[in-house]
Amino acid sequence: MRIIRTVSALREALGRARSGGAASVGFVPTMGALHEGHLSLMRAAREENDLVVVSIFVNPKQFEEAADLAAYPRQERHDAELAASAGVDLIFAPDADELYPAGFATTVSVSGTIAETLEGAARGTGHFDGVATVVAKLLIAVMPENAYFGRKDAQQLVVVRRMVADLGLPVRIVGCPTEREPDGLALSSRNVRLDGEARARAAAIPRALALAESLVADGERSADVVGRAVAETLAESGVEPEYIALVDPVGFETVENIDQPVLCAVAARVGGVRLIDNTTLSVGGTTARGAGE
Amino acid sequence: MRIIRTVSALREALGRARSGGAASVGFVPTMGALHEGHLSLMRAAREENDLVVVSIFVNPKQFEEAADLAAYPRQERHDAELAASAGVDLIFAPDADELYPAGFATTVSVSGTIAETLEGAARGTGHFDGVATVVAKLLIAVMPENAYFGRKDAQQLVVVRRMVADLGLPVRIVGCPTEREPDGLALSSRNVRLDGEARARAAAIPRALALAESLVADGERSADVVGRAVAETLAESGVEPEYIALVDPVGFETVENIDQPVLCAVAARVGGVRLIDNTTLSVGGTTARGAGE
Repeated sequence: MRIIRTVSALREALGRARSGGAASVGFVPTMGALHEGHLSLMRAAREENDLVVVSIFVNPKQFEEAADLAAYPRQERHDAELAASAGVDLIFAPDADELYPAGFATTVSVSGTIAETLEGAARGTGHFDGVATVVAKLLIAVMPENAYFGRKDAQQLVVVRRMVADLGLPVRIVGCPTEREPDGLALSSRNVRLDGEARARAAAIPRALALAESLVADGERSADVVGRAVAETLAESGVEPEYIALVDPVGFETVENIDQPVLCAVAARVGGVRLIDNTTLSVGGTTARGAGE
Repeated sequence: MRIIRTVSALREALGRARSGGAASVGFVPTMGALHEGHLSLMRAAREENDLVVVSIFVNPKQFEEAADLAAYPRQERHDAELAASAGVDLIFAPDADELYPAGFATTVSVSGTIAETLEGAARGTGHFDGVATVVAKLLIAVMPENAYFGRKDAQQLVVVRRMVADLGLPVRIVGCPTEREPDGLALSSRNVRLDGEARARAAAIPRALALAESLVADGERSADVVGRAVAETLAESGVEPEYIALVDPVGFETVENIDQPVLCAVAARVGGVRLIDNTTLSVGGTTARGAGE
């Protein structure tokens, strides 16, 4: 497995692989600090493609808080070993200057409810601009047939799908189920920053989402009732949410009645660490946290 | 020569051409109403590439004024004949719905002086967003080796170069000299809307730019003096400029002293028709209206 630092070297390697018969490239963009969630994306890519490329790039443009960017964990050597174990062929790990050289002035921006609510509102409007810009750049550099994203970042997945469709990038975007700890906590690179007490309290998030699922499974149709039950479950563990949202999973409009699949999304700071999670509440069907749609 | 309406049919045709041995694709994006200026771009593309693709699309996103969009000339059949005569292989002429279907929400935006001054200020900040977005989409659809733009739209060329470099689109952007009428008027699809009297007055624009060139050739180094001479030449013909700008041709910052190449750009409404033109003023070298750099 090779680690590549520049777009030109990446294109050269991909060109050689394609000439050598690689008919499909699968791409997994990451910010490193790899965990089982990322590895499940890489294994999905490995199954479906001749060549698997993973990018590791802590994208400064999608962090509105300098402290959050600085605290984001970095462990490239360990990440490379994990990626190799998942069958990855190429790691693309550019410096910030490679992707954003001096004079860089272009932004890819998705407007509307899907980009401006929830994470867009909580992290600042620049967050999804940063995501859309770097994902567009990475997709243009790799030109994969398939690209894999986790459903834990449900809103990011919707924004990326919109951007890819709108620009006409010839890639299939694949949403993959959220990987979880035994107590349900969604895997996240940020989890390593939770101390023991915060780690225990964080389990209230998947517990609250599971309660939402069971309420809907039992016939509850009021988004307000479900939202309040989620809030109470979080409150019992002293977890204060940034938002609890029940929205339609396509347009992210707030819903009142759960008569179509509804995305229930939560963001909360626990012990100073920002966590997000979601589940799709399906009426009359099975539901799975972060595995819907 | 084929006229193609959809991105998927275009990709199919390009895929077949590439499989059949076309190693390089040259692309000329236009808004139709083709004239000798466009044809010179097509001939340049024809010389350098195995396959030449021209797009004809009056891009609603780059018009801030509905009346200007409505008045823009449309003559597809005639355009197709002209393109065929210049050796074009494929015309891509999509409907607006093909490029901007319902729900379209993505903007490619270049920020800073190069996009916000002159045409960006005169036509509204949405103008270059519209240009950058449609050119990004067209380049992603065609994926040409070379794309050809006229230097008459000097600022558009700089904005496109910036966007292409920033997104890492693997295409060489070629700037081509401005084609002119015998009296110097830059060819433009808008010229057909000039009545006889306005047409005569419009020649003041290239005359003013030629005066700027000769002043600098004779040793004048003050941008203010040159700008005033341009203004006086326009005023003699009753042409009121929207702007007369002397800026550096890379960053579009206003200059005071002409000690490096300077772009002298003019916009004016003549008989209700908006015209632009420019020349690069070179110190101690040859100058050519719209042919510099």
